[in-house]
Amino acid sequence: MNFTEMIIKKKNNGELSSEEIQYFIDGVVKGTIPDYQISAMLMAICINSMSAAETADLTRAMTYSGNTLDLSAIKGIKTDKHSTGGVGDTTTLVLAPLTASLGLPVIKMSGRGLGHTGGTLDKLESIPGFNVNVPMEQAIEQVNDIGIAIMGQTDALDPADKYLYALRDVTGTVESLPLIASSIMSKKLAAGSDAIVLDVKTGSGAFMKNEEDATALAKTMISAGKSMGKSVTALITDMNEPLGLHIGNSLEVIEAIEILKGRREGRLKEVSLALGAEMLVLGGIAKNTQQGISLMEENIHNGKGLEKFRELIEAQGGNVHVTEDYSLFPQPKAKYELRAEKGGYVNSIDCYHIGRASLCTGAGRKTKESPIDYSAGIIMNCRVGDKVEKGSVIAEIYGADMEKCLAAADIIKNAAVISHSRPKERRLVLKTLK
Amino acid sequence: MNFTEMIIKKKNNGELSSEEIQYFIDGVVKGTIPDYQISAMLMAICINSMSAAETADLTRAMTYSGNTLDLSAIKGIKTDKHSTGGVGDTTTLVLAPLTASLGLPVIKMSGRGLGHTGGTLDKLESIPGFNVNVPMEQAIEQVNDIGIAIMGQTDALDPADKYLYALRDVTGTVESLPLIASSIMSKKLAAGSDAIVLDVKTGSGAFMKNEEDATALAKTMISAGKSMGKSVTALITDMNEPLGLHIGNSLEVIEAIEILKGRREGRLKEVSLALGAEMLVLGGIAKNTQQGISLMEENIHNGKGLEKFRELIEAQGGNVHVTEDYSLFPQPKAKYELRAEKGGYVNSIDCYHIGRASLCTGAGRKTKESPIDYSAGIIMNCRVGDKVEKGSVIAEIYGADMEKCLAAADIIKNAAVISHSRPKERRLVLKTLK
Repeated sequence: MNFTEMIIKKKNNGELSSEEIQYFIDGVVKGTIPDYQISAMLMAICINSMSAAETADLTRAMTYSGNTLDLSAIKGIKTDKHSTGGVGDTTTLVLAPLTASLGLPVIKMSGRGLGHTGGTLDKLESIPGFNVNVPMEQAIEQVNDIGIAIMGQTDALDPADKYLYALRDVTGTVESLPLIASSIMSKKLAAGSDAIVLDVKTGSGAFMKNEEDATALAKTMISAGKSMGKSVTALITDMNEPLGLHIGNSLEVIEAIEILKGRREGRLKEVSLALGAEMLVLGGIAKNTQQGISLMEENIHNGKGLEKFRELIEAQGGNVHVTEDYSLFPQPKAKYELRAEKGGYVNSIDCYHIGRASLCTGAGRKTKESPIDYSAGIIMNCRVGDKVEKGSVIAEIYGADMEKCLAAADIIKNAAVISHSRPKERRLVLKTLK
Repeated sequence: MNFTEMIIKKKNNGELSSEEIQYFIDGVVKGTIPDYQISAMLMAICINSMSAAETADLTRAMTYSGNTLDLSAIKGIKTDKHSTGGVGDTTTLVLAPLTASLGLPVIKMSGRGLGHTGGTLDKLESIPGFNVNVPMEQAIEQVNDIGIAIMGQTDALDPADKYLYALRDVTGTVESLPLIASSIMSKKLAAGSDAIVLDVKTGSGAFMKNEEDATALAKTMISAGKSMGKSVTALITDMNEPLGLHIGNSLEVIEAIEILKGRREGRLKEVSLALGAEMLVLGGIAKNTQQGISLMEENIHNGKGLEKFRELIEAQGGNVHVTEDYSLFPQPKAKYELRAEKGGYVNSIDCYHIGRASLCTGAGRKTKESPIDYSAGIIMNCRVGDKVEKGSVIAEIYGADMEKCLAAADIIKNAAVISHSRPKERRLVLKTLK
């Protein structure tokens, strides 16, 4: 096959065959197609998109581009979750212990973050001693023992995605439904999941700014997953303000623990339970999502969810006492309280800028090599719709020094808009797609 | 500036600023932008195209990406010609001596060919002793002396085009009006021309298969040239059958000599004179194209055109006696006469396939490194519209061995369609654009 001819086909809006897509991905992994040809193909795909059949073929080829995990040693339906990413979005730390406490086997490979905060792995590593580098055999054993393991990805999975993602990042070809969908789905499929729940975010803090785009992405992912015989459910959820009140690494672990203790309601809990309920349904544990939510509420009330989280921490070497004593987490050196300049209703909190502010505190990575400050971050004391008094503390900002805190404060000041009228309430779970 | 942002801008169909395009071309030449980013940008340009302003900026940046020639030491208006390339298309060898014999300074940098035959340089090199490697100072002296020089391009001109063209070739990004136009025009402008005549081919043997596409390309090139203050005229000419009857290297030189001797009329002469007349007008030597054609016909009749060609050959070390004795050209080892399988009118001669047949004889290069057989090629004994008898010789095929000749014959057999009815006559010069 001639790859230049293939590029021209896609440039002219043609449809690539299964064989052609296999040849493409083989060439990426074996290094036989040079980067300049790969990036030309990626750009052609970006602009001209791909059919459902092409996206399915691409997802399949990527899934099998390296090793795939065999989770047959774990009993039950292995159900995974993926979020397209938001601010204050630590649903995994809430729903994983809760669903595991109900008997759903949770073997979750998470990533590190590049952006406003770390990823799930970074958040867990803010627990002193917590080890995310668990070999697969040991993880399987751990799941058969306590029902849950959360660890880093092994390199041998989906090498095509790693290569393509690095190239997309520097060639302006990140934004593309088929490329995003195949990247997400191939990773999950290579990781051996039987069923997948997707949280597709939409709004100012999300990659997909409007509901239509988010729906299109969700549909593309569902279709790619189904083409490989997997059950996939997607929720479209609002990301026009931070999901939780805490934004940071240890800060988000603390908020998850608070929810597991039954001490905090709100949007983060609501989305976590909505996603968890879908997982319980796909996993055959709940008959419907309503029952799934009730079961999880019960395990919050009776402490079984928190207990499962403690078992996870203990199994992976972390200091389990953090769940009772938050001062055992790394402590920030500086704190700044941002106060409302006027009274009124919080009309909007631009999520994108809150993310930027979080990065300023040191909670996130600017480049892959940047260190992360586990203790840094933001606690928002208000939500959209709240009434605030002039001079009241609307955000607590934590960082390694006051300079970082003030830089973040400047951004938050403009991101949180206070006005006279109460804003319309926004729905959180906009849509469920299967 | 961030080049990834620039790629994204073009991907989203935005318009690049002059500064951005300058940054792009600087990065290409200095090697500071990696190939994978350049090819992503090229693909985005290919699919989303460029505005006239962008194309003008690109042409300008490429023109000045390396050295530019200063031809001020040559008196008169330096007028160049470019053809988008066809089969049996050796207009330069006809019009250059004719216009030079009328006082138009001709300093022409030509290329080698990759395709059905060699380029103008290869054709000239089929003249024993002819040297195309003439240093610029010497070429200027030669033009001031005898009015004409034809030589190879110096490497220092338009390095951006050389780099981009090589990358376009392997990334499926050759077909693009702004990229083709800026490539052609920047080369001509860097070579110091004051005015340019373009021969944009359309038809089965041309890059642009229909008149609309050819017109669009011509308009893009005219606009790019005008943006740099140059006079540009474009002819759209038909390339649905070979232009001359001879296809090859020495064969095409011989046909040009025959025209200069006044012994051959037909399409090659017609287009050569039409282009030459536009050059004479732009060069201020003829008042209008009608006068330009008369002047050239006169210099065919009185032998001044042929004499100028002989002066050129002599000045560049070639054996001038070839103009009288064609046996001094390299001679082919094998010859095959293709005969008509039935009688009737020649309905069509597919130019693309005649080009392929020519390559089979050995007259062209398959790769940059392939040697060229100067003596190989095809003499067509018929044109579209001619009546042929069954068994009459419709083509003479020359090559290094009979195998090559027969391979070419097989192709020509199918390329030349003979039928009962006489085909409609086709116009040759379809349009003149300024």
